[in-house]
Amino acid sequence: MRKQITGFSNPTVKYLRSLRDKKHRKRSGQFLVEGLRLLEDARSVGRLPQTLVMAEGRDGHELLARLEADVVAAGGEVITTTPDILAKITGKENAQSVAGVFDEWDTSLAGLDRQAAPIWLAAQALRDPGNLGTMLRTCDAVGAGGLILIDDCADPFSAEAVRASMGAVFTVGLAQARWEEFVPWLRGGMGQLVAASLRDAVPYRGAPYQAPCFILVGNESQGLPEDYEAACDLRVTMPMRGRADSLNAAVAGAVLAYEVLAGVEV
Amino acid sequence: MRKQITGFSNPTVKYLRSLRDKKHRKRSGQFLVEGLRLLEDARSVGRLPQTLVMAEGRDGHELLARLEADVVAAGGEVITTTPDILAKITGKENAQSVAGVFDEWDTSLAGLDRQAAPIWLAAQALRDPGNLGTMLRTCDAVGAGGLILIDDCADPFSAEAVRASMGAVFTVGLAQARWEEFVPWLRGGMGQLVAASLRDAVPYRGAPYQAPCFILVGNESQGLPEDYEAACDLRVTMPMRGRADSLNAAVAGAVLAYEVLAGVEV
Repeated sequence: MRKQITGFSNPTVKYLRSLRDKKHRKRSGQFLVEGLRLLEDARSVGRLPQTLVMAEGRDGHELLARLEADVVAAGGEVITTTPDILAKITGKENAQSVAGVFDEWDTSLAGLDRQAAPIWLAAQALRDPGNLGTMLRTCDAVGAGGLILIDDCADPFSAEAVRASMGAVFTVGLAQARWEEFVPWLRGGMGQLVAASLRDAVPYRGAPYQAPCFILVGNESQGLPEDYEAACDLRVTMPMRGRADSLNAAVAGAVLAYEVLAGVEV
Repeated sequence: MRKQITGFSNPTVKYLRSLRDKKHRKRSGQFLVEGLRLLEDARSVGRLPQTLVMAEGRDGHELLARLEADVVAAGGEVITTTPDILAKITGKENAQSVAGVFDEWDTSLAGLDRQAAPIWLAAQALRDPGNLGTMLRTCDAVGAGGLILIDDCADPFSAEAVRASMGAVFTVGLAQARWEEFVPWLRGGMGQLVAASLRDAVPYRGAPYQAPCFILVGNESQGLPEDYEAACDLRVTMPMRGRADSLNAAVAGAVLAYEVLAGVEV
């Protein structure tokens, strides 16, 4: 069944719009995803929106028709509305013609199978949602199991993180934990914790990486706390030929991940 | 001489504020840089703002005092104003306590010395200013000569690009050119043009890189045009183990740049 919304002040419009704010996402446990491509990425791994919102006059697309059918079959809701109202919901002038509301899922460490992949990325106090999404995308590219967000990070369910992930938020593992939870979990099984570091570090190239290898990058401004680095099994350093002593966090994670990938494949 | 501005409607405030728009930056040939750290990066390589804008009550800082003295000595202008007005200028609620207005500089290819470094980054139709700034930062890290922006890219003098560059916009080379200008310039001297590609490519790891090596990455959505790839001397491919077939543009550039760095150093 389709429901049509024609008024800007409709409570559903207000609710959908509220999902742009982290506070409201946390309260409702839902997030909003814009664009057919991301919705297709989600569908391809069996994640369907609870609610599908489509702009009127744009529903001739075959993929969209299939998505709508799947949402309805799964008991979800389909809303049609005007392009203007959809733009108001997403906060973009050039809104995509479709958006979906998903339930957030379990992001506890218990949901990860560390043996499922030779590489994992971990980020501590990562503040930039674009960096977060880029790291999820890198996880997909290197065949990493997923991304573990340690301490207070940006929200992986924000529109910016989801967009930067290019759909990887749906397809790779995702966990959120405090450092005090992460360390016991890590030490409860196999796993090498590797940090990019300037202290007591070996060259990153050809370092003795071991699967499953957990690559840890720190906050964009502060880097990793010293005691976090000390708790790592291996500290590696990348050449820094210029004036600065660090890379963008997502870049550092990716350069290390590709090096580990080459190392664990040998 | 210090000038004090107390009114929101002051024409200087309007002018400074207008520099947040690319259109106005192009017209005036000036851009605005926020924060003492970036201003210090600029000063360290001899670039001083034409105008320094300081929030009142914050001028006890030693670095800021030195910067002010240098600006005055160079014939520049120093403006003090209220924190509220500075926030209005920069468009940020938590504005830094200082900003500077710089003249844009020559970004023609003629300004680059290709022999100055073994690695150069080039980006075609790069649209995201954060990616652009991140690539400048990577240039600094790998000791690259600089970044060449090909065709219509984001503005390297936007606040977001400058911030993401962590000051590297001031310290590494920067050029802007159409493809039709870039190719004759490149072929007018030594230089290997390398593209990340899925077509007719060799593994990126251990590929025969030669200095000066120009690493070319394409637009975030479209990648490189096929004829641009065909014009490259070497096409390399990176492992893609997941569902997607590409990396974030700045990430791809960095992974390649570190591989080239290892290669040209052997």
